Amino acid sequence: MTASIHDLGTPALLVDVDALDANLDVFSEALPGPRLRPHVKAHKCTALARRQAERGHEGFTCATVREMIGMAEAGLGADLLLANEVVDPVRLRSLAALDARVTVAVDSAETIRAAADAGIREVLVDVNVGLPRCGCPVDRAGPLADLARKSGLVVRGVMGYEGHVVGNDDRAAREAGCEASMQLLLQAHEQVGGDLVSAGGTGTYDCNRWATEIQAGSYALMDTAYTKLGLPLGQALFLWCTVISVSEKFAVADGGLKSLGMDHGNPHLPDGGKLWFCSDEHITFAGDPSKPPVRVGDRLRVVPAHVDPTIAYHDRLHLVSGENVVDIWDVDLRGW
Amino acid sequence: MTASIHDLGTPALLVDVDALDANLDVFSEALPGPRLRPHVKAHKCTALARRQAERGHEGFTCATVREMIGMAEAGLGADLLLANEVVDPVRLRSLAALDARVTVAVDSAETIRAAADAGIREVLVDVNVGLPRCGCPVDRAGPLADLARKSGLVVRGVMGYEGHVVGNDDRAAREAGCEASMQLLLQAHEQVGGDLVSAGGTGTYDCNRWATEIQAGSYALMDTAYTKLGLPLGQALFLWCTVISVSEKFAVADGGLKSLGMDHGNPHLPDGGKLWFCSDEHITFAGDPSKPPVRVGDRLRVVPAHVDPTIAYHDRLHLVSGENVVDIWDVDLRGW
Repeated sequence: MTASIHDLGTPALLVDVDALDANLDVFSEALPGPRLRPHVKAHKCTALARRQAERGHEGFTCATVREMIGMAEAGLGADLLLANEVVDPVRLRSLAALDARVTVAVDSAETIRAAADAGIREVLVDVNVGLPRCGCPVDRAGPLADLARKSGLVVRGVMGYEGHVVGNDDRAAREAGCEASMQLLLQAHEQVGGDLVSAGGTGTYDCNRWATEIQAGSYALMDTAYTKLGLPLGQALFLWCTVISVSEKFAVADGGLKSLGMDHGNPHLPDGGKLWFCSDEHITFAGDPSKPPVRVGDRLRVVPAHVDPTIAYHDRLHLVSGENVVDIWDVDLRGW
Repeated sequence: MTASIHDLGTPALLVDVDALDANLDVFSEALPGPRLRPHVKAHKCTALARRQAERGHEGFTCATVREMIGMAEAGLGADLLLANEVVDPVRLRSLAALDARVTVAVDSAETIRAAADAGIREVLVDVNVGLPRCGCPVDRAGPLADLARKSGLVVRGVMGYEGHVVGNDDRAAREAGCEASMQLLLQAHEQVGGDLVSAGGTGTYDCNRWATEIQAGSYALMDTAYTKLGLPLGQALFLWCTVISVSEKFAVADGGLKSLGMDHGNPHLPDGGKLWFCSDEHITFAGDPSKPPVRVGDRLRVVPAHVDPTIAYHDRLHLVSGENVVDIWDVDLRGW
């Protein structure tokens, strides 16, 4: 198929194929094969995951049971890690029944019991390495691994996400924070055993030398929050909008709070102009004074501030090369 | 059907039926029949719209073409207003083909031409009454109405949203701002003619005495942004979450940035505890020290800061009475 981006209904997510492939190549070169366990939460798209698998990354990271099931159903279940705690017995049993290799994060006696009761076979011990979120204290990792093994589970190793440092735009501080977190994770690993030390993200992919595998997701499509780190990655995701109203000092396009994740702040206008604010279905902005006046019907690209919650609003990604739509991918891993 | 909320997979949206009905009653009493044109953008749910229609409000407001089509297909198309500008000829033709009364907002020669070309029959002239968004200047309303009529369109009147004042929690300032905006809208209406002066929202429902109809949406389910206005409305929407991890100083529940609209800031914990921050699939919070310690597997309610972009993440609303799930409604108006 080939259609023009000018024929798309808006708002619509565009993925620049060349930028996507370049990003995937950068990471595949830096983290070949099993050194990278791509996180699907950033894109929620099995077609994009397949493109990652084709580059040799057969193991994937997921944040939800729905993502795990969708990946298995798409034939991408060689080694799926649910890097999140679950205690829902119905969902855990559905995971255990998958025709896929399933590993689940645990960080407490309760999550170990829930996994074992549901028939889950393999787990990682999730360790808190500084981010106030899931993960046990370092000195609990060994006892939890013992409990898991006594419960009949295979313990594959540890995971610990240094999420409190991945976005630090001072590279030296980011590296030092990563090292401090990974020293904690390695201490836990000594007690836990197993082959895997799973950690990291887009922001630490090139400085985390301690993890055996990196759980990066945002690198494929990028957003403004990661752009400021100056990584060798290009913006591949854009919201495509139509101008629907023009006034003397501003114009309005048809994107907004229901097509953009807003927790990292306002989106960016890469082709010029200044964003004023977003409403549910509107982006109010001022045109670039060095360019011709904005007109009703004009199209524009908007760069989301945070890729993950942006994509979760959409059901399709439009793959584009220049002004051609070369493919459409379903965002088929939404929900829980 | 009757199930327990404790059997629901999480995160899940709960709607307190009693609070919803009370909110609907408050507005139906204050704004009977056609004085209220409920805005479906806040809930995106035809089942909820039907509950509004059953209280005598047969006209509805929509923000997207998808909402218009879904409402018509659900048999709720007696008088549908698209309170937004559209220039997409494909979508406008799909609107014109609906078995429904369709009225579309216009604020420029381009939007008038697009509507007329697509076979749309009725329009409202959208007037800027102070919010920097869509709407023409007051002195353009008359000429645009003339152009619309010359183009074969029926002009039903004017609309103008005082969105810059509806959230002001100083009631006197909110009322004064509303009056100033409505004076502008009435000036435009004098030039335009027609029966309708459509304006307002939840925050001005009881002080906007100038509009012939009020376009309120949030009132049905509410959120923390509107709660601070002290309106006689109860919180009816909650995100239902499960605690998946507990640490010494905080706990983690399974809601997050993909289940909550974040543009109005963090959600609120109505049953105690202090929210720390949200991640994609996690809410980190501290338990209420006056209550028993939080445990893995506990359930909790979270009040979204902004109802509209929260619901747009979900495909179902679970209607609850106490701890019973009494019905499940599809969020069937998502997308564009």
